[in-house]
Amino acid sequence: MNFPPPQWVKDAATEALGTVAGNHYSHPKGRIRLREAIRDVYSSQFPNLGRPLNVETEILVTSGANEGQYSVFTAFLEQGDEVIMFEPFFDQYLPSVTFNGGVPVYVPLHPPAESNTSPSSADWTIDFDELRRAITPKTKMIIVNTPHNPIGKVFTREELEKIAVLSQEFNLLVMSDEVYENLVFDDKEHVRIGSFPGMWDRTVSVYSAGKGFSATGWRVGWLIGPPSIIGPTLAASTRIIFCSNSPLQEAAAAGLEQAKANKFFETQLKEYAERRDVLLKAFDDIGLRYTYPEGSYFVLLDISRVQWPEGYEFPESVQGRGRDFRAAWFIAQEIGVSTIPVSEFYCQEHQEIGEKFTRFAFCKDIETLKKAGERLKGITKYLT
Amino acid sequence: MNFPPPQWVKDAATEALGTVAGNHYSHPKGRIRLREAIRDVYSSQFPNLGRPLNVETEILVTSGANEGQYSVFTAFLEQGDEVIMFEPFFDQYLPSVTFNGGVPVYVPLHPPAESNTSPSSADWTIDFDELRRAITPKTKMIIVNTPHNPIGKVFTREELEKIAVLSQEFNLLVMSDEVYENLVFDDKEHVRIGSFPGMWDRTVSVYSAGKGFSATGWRVGWLIGPPSIIGPTLAASTRIIFCSNSPLQEAAAAGLEQAKANKFFETQLKEYAERRDVLLKAFDDIGLRYTYPEGSYFVLLDISRVQWPEGYEFPESVQGRGRDFRAAWFIAQEIGVSTIPVSEFYCQEHQEIGEKFTRFAFCKDIETLKKAGERLKGITKYLT
Ligand SMILES: Cc1ncc(COP(=O)(O)O)c(C=O)c1O
Ligand SMILES: Cc1ncc(COP(=O)(O)O)c(C=O)c1O
Repeated sequence: MNFPPPQWVKDAATEALGTVAGNHYSHPKGRIRLREAIRDVYSSQFPNLGRPLNVETEILVTSGANEGQYSVFTAFLEQGDEVIMFEPFFDQYLPSVTFNGGVPVYVPLHPPAESNTSPSSADWTIDFDELRRAITPKTKMIIVNTPHNPIGKVFTREELEKIAVLSQEFNLLVMSDEVYENLVFDDKEHVRIGSFPGMWDRTVSVYSAGKGFSATGWRVGWLIGPPSIIGPTLAASTRIIFCSNSPLQEAAAAGLEQAKANKFFETQLKEYAERRDVLLKAFDDIGLRYTYPEGSYFVLLDISRVQWPEGYEFPESVQGRGRDFRAAWFIAQEIGVSTIPVSEFYCQEHQEIGEKFTRFAFCKDIETLKKAGERLKGITKYLT
Repeated sequence: MNFPPPQWVKDAATEALGTVAGNHYSHPKGRIRLREAIRDVYSSQFPNLGRPLNVETEILVTSGANEGQYSVFTAFLEQGDEVIMFEPFFDQYLPSVTFNGGVPVYVPLHPPAESNTSPSSADWTIDFDELRRAITPKTKMIIVNTPHNPIGKVFTREELEKIAVLSQEFNLLVMSDEVYENLVFDDKEHVRIGSFPGMWDRTVSVYSAGKGFSATGWRVGWLIGPPSIIGPTLAASTRIIFCSNSPLQEAAAAGLEQAKANKFFETQLKEYAERRDVLLKAFDDIGLRYTYPEGSYFVLLDISRVQWPEGYEFPESVQGRGRDFRAAWFIAQEIGVSTIPVSEFYCQEHQEIGEKFTRFAFCKDIETLKKAGERLKGITKYLT
């Protein structure tokens, strides 16, 4: 991101720095003010619980969503346990699982069939028979990420219900990565799988102040789930980091406390929708297909038609990787816009699905995005 | 601690909050300003290197010393690898080792023989034959902690040299936990085992901005070591936390940059020495033996003579633990001063060594320490 967190959130950090306790160790569960703010904001999102979240046993503040997810894996994975993740996947999942002795099992989100028009992220689909076949007696957990990085897909209630049914049938834990919960566009609905009947007890939901308040460098996130998941995860997190930083927990608390009154998330959503539209218009102008993102701040550009001159020289770092690595390198060098090759989000076996795309991020100010759009015009002479 | 970090260090945090980049992801290695400040302060401490530290390969910023140590274990321990630690030990070592598949092996620091006067932390000694016997073909690493929590012992050059010789003979990694490096009293010398000839390549040294700048809740620390240790540890840390929080890294950088000009560590040391002396005087006044700490902010009080009334009721949480758990409970309840029972820092087999002590922390303002001294007078009627 190249914009700052809101001033009133930063003010709370400065205020905390002005106290004594705001500079010292927090409880490993997280500072009580933040846990209470989380309770007040999220309890209504889990109506299946029938009461407010318990700040002592059902909420854990973590050092970013990342450390929270790592701690869940540390707490729950035994050597050889399998973890199902949909491809493409947020790249940290793979090493976080394997570092904890787990074995990633990949189920692809299938891209829409070729066509001349740009598809929507909703057109990327799960083959539920394939998902069922991926489950073995060793499967311990399934990771769901909605809104999705890098596709921008917002999982529908129906999709999540089918995943929920399978998780109950095979007694799986569900990690629901919802760090982009506040970036769901076009009046779509953000659905929490942990809020379904029968799902509270097996789901840990993952959130990030960094994504919510434009403060990725604050390293504050939180997990919501039943004591049976939060308890062991707290034990792991207490050893891994002991606790999260105090002043920025206070800031995140202020953020949650005042977001509603400040209409913060509504305004932020509008800003992101505008950013998205600037970038998509640039793609439309040059006539390149992309996946229209219903959520998150990512968009996949189809780069099959980008063709660099014969003999163009690439560095060693992109040799032996998918075609998308060369395309992304070429676009960065010649056009001046940097993107992430999408085969990076696939296992080796399935990388040819990802090879057709690079990922753009529109967590940039409008000015920067417009400039990127201008530069991208330069690509037209390399299109087949 | 019940005092804040220095204002000029906090100001740097506020300044960072006022920028855009200061609120966003840092490089997983740490922010360059902080890595450069670390290089500038520490290079002269490792003369065996013969050149300045390399900020790209020999320094890693971590989320507190704690996460740094955990990441080293994640990077280096294979299932069944043994890690030698001196007892008593900082309690996080044990789970951090076992969570990563390691097996802790304990070598006691032997308390001085009984006498009527208070011994010094220097009188707690290592039996080097015992240390040698603890080394097996599975030993991977040895942890040294100087100044020592909880004894306050400052390891001598001779002791560290003997440890260095053994680590070279048996090809061991050395983790040198020096988070209290700036709290060495009475003109004693803080010696870094990583600075010895032949030791750079096998030593990772561990530091903490929390301890250095009275900001335990900032969760900023750093590791210094050779690329062969820092590289794999960076790979682990990048997955575990991705990166440390940005604004407080900037603050720690300012702290290191300006500490010398502000005579910060000298002043801080004097303040801690004064705090220590207030507490020790209180012990002297009531005639209880303690271990005079040459470093750190801890002191062990010998509680063998404390005798609670027969039939005194203890809660379940201290039943079945060492006598020190009951003593610490009794002192907290009846005298109003809370301390940590020292058998907590020993493995079960050796807990009778620790049972004779509770640990006081003098990281409190003088006023609080004086009040504690006043309250402690109440203990005299329970002494045998
Ligand atoms: C899907 C997803 N989950 C988790 C994270 C990590 O979030 P945090 O910065 O809070 O650790 C990210 C960051 O990019 C992400 O995209
Ligand atoms: C010996 C020792 N090492 C490491 C730590 C952890 O330091 P940090 O707060 O920087 O994680 C402590 C904290 O008490 C300690 O006493």
